[in-house]
Amino acid sequence: MDLNEIQDPSFLKECSNEELEKLASTVRNFLIEKLSVTGGHLGANLGVVELTLALHKVFNSPEDKFVWDVGHQSYIHKILTGRTGQFDTLRQYQGLCGFPKRNESEHDVWETGHSSTSLSAAMGMAIARDMKGEDNSIVPIIGDGALTGGMALEALNHIGDEKKNVVVILNDNEMSIAHNVGALHNVLGRMRSAHKYHWMKDEMEWLLKRIPAVGGRLATVAERMKDSMKYFMVPGMFFEELGFTYYGPVDGHNFEDLFENLEYAKKTEGPVLVHVMTQKGKGYHPAESDQKDKWHGVGPYKIESGEKIKATDAPPAWSDVISESLRGIARKDNRLAVITPAMILGSKLEKFKEEFPDRLFDVGIAEQHATTLSAGMATQGMKPFLAIYSTFLQRGYDQLVHDVCRQNLNVMFGIDRAGLVGADGETHQGVFDVAFLRSLPNMTLMMPKDENEGQHMVQTAMEYNDGPIGIRYPRGNGLGVEMDQELKRIPIGSWEVLKEGKDAAILTFGTTIPMALEASKELESQGLSVRVINARFIKPMDESMLHDLMDMNMPLLTIEEAVLKGGFGSGVLEFAEENKYYNQTIERMGIPDRYIEHGSVKELYKEIGLTKDEIMKRLKQMIPEKKQRA
Amino acid sequence: MDLNEIQDPSFLKECSNEELEKLASTVRNFLIEKLSVTGGHLGANLGVVELTLALHKVFNSPEDKFVWDVGHQSYIHKILTGRTGQFDTLRQYQGLCGFPKRNESEHDVWETGHSSTSLSAAMGMAIARDMKGEDNSIVPIIGDGALTGGMALEALNHIGDEKKNVVVILNDNEMSIAHNVGALHNVLGRMRSAHKYHWMKDEMEWLLKRIPAVGGRLATVAERMKDSMKYFMVPGMFFEELGFTYYGPVDGHNFEDLFENLEYAKKTEGPVLVHVMTQKGKGYHPAESDQKDKWHGVGPYKIESGEKIKATDAPPAWSDVISESLRGIARKDNRLAVITPAMILGSKLEKFKEEFPDRLFDVGIAEQHATTLSAGMATQGMKPFLAIYSTFLQRGYDQLVHDVCRQNLNVMFGIDRAGLVGADGETHQGVFDVAFLRSLPNMTLMMPKDENEGQHMVQTAMEYNDGPIGIRYPRGNGLGVEMDQELKRIPIGSWEVLKEGKDAAILTFGTTIPMALEASKELESQGLSVRVINARFIKPMDESMLHDLMDMNMPLLTIEEAVLKGGFGSGVLEFAEENKYYNQTIERMGIPDRYIEHGSVKELYKEIGLTKDEIMKRLKQMIPEKKQRA
Repeated sequence: MDLNEIQDPSFLKECSNEELEKLASTVRNFLIEKLSVTGGHLGANLGVVELTLALHKVFNSPEDKFVWDVGHQSYIHKILTGRTGQFDTLRQYQGLCGFPKRNESEHDVWETGHSSTSLSAAMGMAIARDMKGEDNSIVPIIGDGALTGGMALEALNHIGDEKKNVVVILNDNEMSIAHNVGALHNVLGRMRSAHKYHWMKDEMEWLLKRIPAVGGRLATVAERMKDSMKYFMVPGMFFEELGFTYYGPVDGHNFEDLFENLEYAKKTEGPVLVHVMTQKGKGYHPAESDQKDKWHGVGPYKIESGEKIKATDAPPAWSDVISESLRGIARKDNRLAVITPAMILGSKLEKFKEEFPDRLFDVGIAEQHATTLSAGMATQGMKPFLAIYSTFLQRGYDQLVHDVCRQNLNVMFGIDRAGLVGADGETHQGVFDVAFLRSLPNMTLMMPKDENEGQHMVQTAMEYNDGPIGIRYPRGNGLGVEMDQELKRIPIGSWEVLKEGKDAAILTFGTTIPMALEASKELESQGLSVRVINARFIKPMDESMLHDLMDMNMPLLTIEEAVLKGGFGSGVLEFAEENKYYNQTIERMGIPDRYIEHGSVKELYKEIGLTKDEIMKRLKQMIPEKKQRA
Repeated sequence: MDLNEIQDPSFLKECSNEELEKLASTVRNFLIEKLSVTGGHLGANLGVVELTLALHKVFNSPEDKFVWDVGHQSYIHKILTGRTGQFDTLRQYQGLCGFPKRNESEHDVWETGHSSTSLSAAMGMAIARDMKGEDNSIVPIIGDGALTGGMALEALNHIGDEKKNVVVILNDNEMSIAHNVGALHNVLGRMRSAHKYHWMKDEMEWLLKRIPAVGGRLATVAERMKDSMKYFMVPGMFFEELGFTYYGPVDGHNFEDLFENLEYAKKTEGPVLVHVMTQKGKGYHPAESDQKDKWHGVGPYKIESGEKIKATDAPPAWSDVISESLRGIARKDNRLAVITPAMILGSKLEKFKEEFPDRLFDVGIAEQHATTLSAGMATQGMKPFLAIYSTFLQRGYDQLVHDVCRQNLNVMFGIDRAGLVGADGETHQGVFDVAFLRSLPNMTLMMPKDENEGQHMVQTAMEYNDGPIGIRYPRGNGLGVEMDQELKRIPIGSWEVLKEGKDAAILTFGTTIPMALEASKELESQGLSVRVINARFIKPMDESMLHDLMDMNMPLLTIEEAVLKGGFGSGVLEFAEENKYYNQTIERMGIPDRYIEHGSVKELYKEIGLTKDEIMKRLKQMIPEKKQRA
């Protein structure tokens, strides 16, 4: 079958299991081939080929609604809904999104990127359906890892109570982004092994009948005992307790097993949970045998060998720089512990874990808990370092406000993937952190100009004992600068002049420094002298330097890879207002007031006007004519 | 016993149960009397008198650490740790805090206010203890309502997995802030009733012995069947599944039962959950018989009758105004549904629930779920109204960023208790919402000048179909203005001139409007003419009016009861910058960059300089000398 001919999933209704097997194989080969060029979430998608085909055969999208949790496993769904031809542009600028996207297809009813939202969304849709008197199925598909997220548990609790018709598909691959953690994982483990006992059901009943018949008090006991047998026979008692009808475990790569259970689930009244066992990377050997989940999200690779195609001699990844700095410090200071919400791989903490297994805490996809856990540690004199992506720190916002900053606790935050992240797109851009952290009392926030300053900032955070402190650093690799052997403390709130200049000054930090320096250099050849300042402390700012600049009435241009509303530039405006520098020229560049979609960071820079040329243009407009000697 | 003589809880070690009973009675009388004057969280504290005494007898605070979830039930703990004499100042300016406070006592190891944080904090403390090689007990005390909060569930999952020594006290009063909701509540319900079956244990074993002895495959079955009996005998199997040792249910008003179980718990290795049944309001008849939880947090009352002492003829409460507007609209438009996270009482939704039981969804203490559930409903054409306190909306921040605003869904937010809330203090001040909502793309945010405008804003939100829209309104009562009979739509982004003036203009919204008007009036008598503008749309702002003002170069003073960093005033600064009004004088008044403690709103206004006098002073400094004709 030519996948390009698929317009919608209706053809599946007529497919035999044999044809489906063939189709599954075609889909797998397609994904392995396409993703070897574009990169993408290979492992997760290979795991749900049969499941997705089965879902689209049993249910009728878009009347029935599939809500893909996280959403990176929706590639097969995209193929079945007529988007095969777009896979060459997967995760590229203005190309096919790597997550469900409502403007791509009516079959995408809910957009995701962050985990654990599907059950809440599904419940909302179920309520709406019932209010409208409609009768469709709502089918959230959630992984075992996502289930540990607090909001998924809140939703389970509500769905189980309200008894709405919702068919939850638990896609259990025994491995979320990294190995799953938490007691729930153990609960699921017991359910998984339960299928070994399925054959015992008959023998069980035989036994039960042999329990002597009794009357009076004992009758009640016997009755209750039979009830409790359910716990034995129904492996999903945990979910049954919460009000769900449990089906499973189901072999997620066996169509017969899938159809039987999905058909049952579709007809069942009230909330249902279908526990489907799948294997990540199924059908592609290098990914199948991948114990460390390195095939979760991949760049281009060689199909035969599975070898990753990478730029050689790239500078170290930012996550590596921070993680290695922590490892060095941990050897000398045993107050340091690292907390990660299911991101050991992403945050490059494998080596730290190996060397300090008792000082690395992977709490699962649980950012709220991770934040307050760190706060709890800090009350006892520890120095917890929470390594967390900027976009996921959003989940810990109230915990930042209420627990960490309000109690002014010494929690260190390694805010990874800060700024634009590229291919993952708008759900993952780390662009709000500057605005939401800057408005919190007691918070200190910095961003290094390069990886050498990055390692010094880890040391700075370690030595800082006056409250919470965050280091934001971008996705990708450092600049390749030389690394100092000795770590040092950077004075809190100090900025640094990177290039002198007297006609205007650029205040910027992190990733936008190189383009600022280039702009300044190029302007120099045009006779304009522009100072470039490394505003490495976003909060507190270098007030002494700001006073100097404003006392000179030097035009100031702030540049940040973060949202403009309430951002760093606004902080500079606030400073000018508070100190009554009424006639001070300040302009700001940064991320405009809309969500930024996927694409390479360079393309996105261009789209939003964060470029050397734009910087030069703005500066020329700002600097009074008389100074423009060119 | 004179409670004032208590310095620390060590005396409890020598107390007999009889003496403890007496002490409990003394404490109850003290609380009933004191709170009849000051107000406070009476019901919750009367429920935990025996529990608190027992905890302080069995454990050794402050070496052993009590982590009070929410914290409003810590009054007895405060009495036992030497703070009896301060109860006259409870929840008053610079007086005793209504929640645990680390600077009040070494026995307060963790500060709270928001629910569901205790388990994470406790886990952090347990990790720290083990890293330091210490051996104390960590004892979080959490209510059944707080347990439905996602972060508490995340923590349960982590604690159960890591097997750290933590003694969780589940204070189950079958009623959190309102009646508890959710499937977990049903799970707890089954556990509560389980004690009826305790006597059956012997009979049970008798029965088990009578199961015929078997070999081979059946031996495994029989073994597993015996395992499953645990489910019958251990009512807390749900928690056991998650890795906890369960003790209970325990009668929380019976010292013998409490001591037996707490002593066991203290000695048990690994995580323990002690399920304690308590009665809210225990020992004070009006509170005991309170089915609607009206005694949760109270103002002054008459002890004999329980009659609340209230200002007569007060204008309607803000929550009532909004709720009644919703009720009116719901009669005409069946797309409207209201969602509340356990705040039916606080948000005054009883009548709405009565009239529209199928359109009111109480999801429990689960703000993340509430936010995304609303988003899910909106995707299906519903008009969900999420009634939520400003401070609790913080819990839904990522859901706002990722689900609601990013998908630009028509979710309405009723942001209650916006601004300073008074006696509840720093954990509850609703002062961050302006900053964190303004920086989100697609968000519209308004605040009414009075309750009449408030009801029109509900209608405005209902008619708005271009994305999320929030109405923030303060704690307490409206101004007592006349209410229009017909609801009308207010043009989005439109401001309103409340008082003309030409020397300067005040831009403000909501609660700070009256003081602005007063200041303007008083300045008039001094010869200064100050315009007062109702900036009812915080986002988008009235750009046309701003252009007019800045084209005139009129000095502008912004005033907001919200944090200054990134707030509304910063938005005005940003507008001036974006439109190159370089010489525009703008000054801002609002909440400074620190947490504001408890006290009456009036006292807090004075503390932070949000007063008529300060406004006058600032304006006089801003208006150029030549215009000052006085």
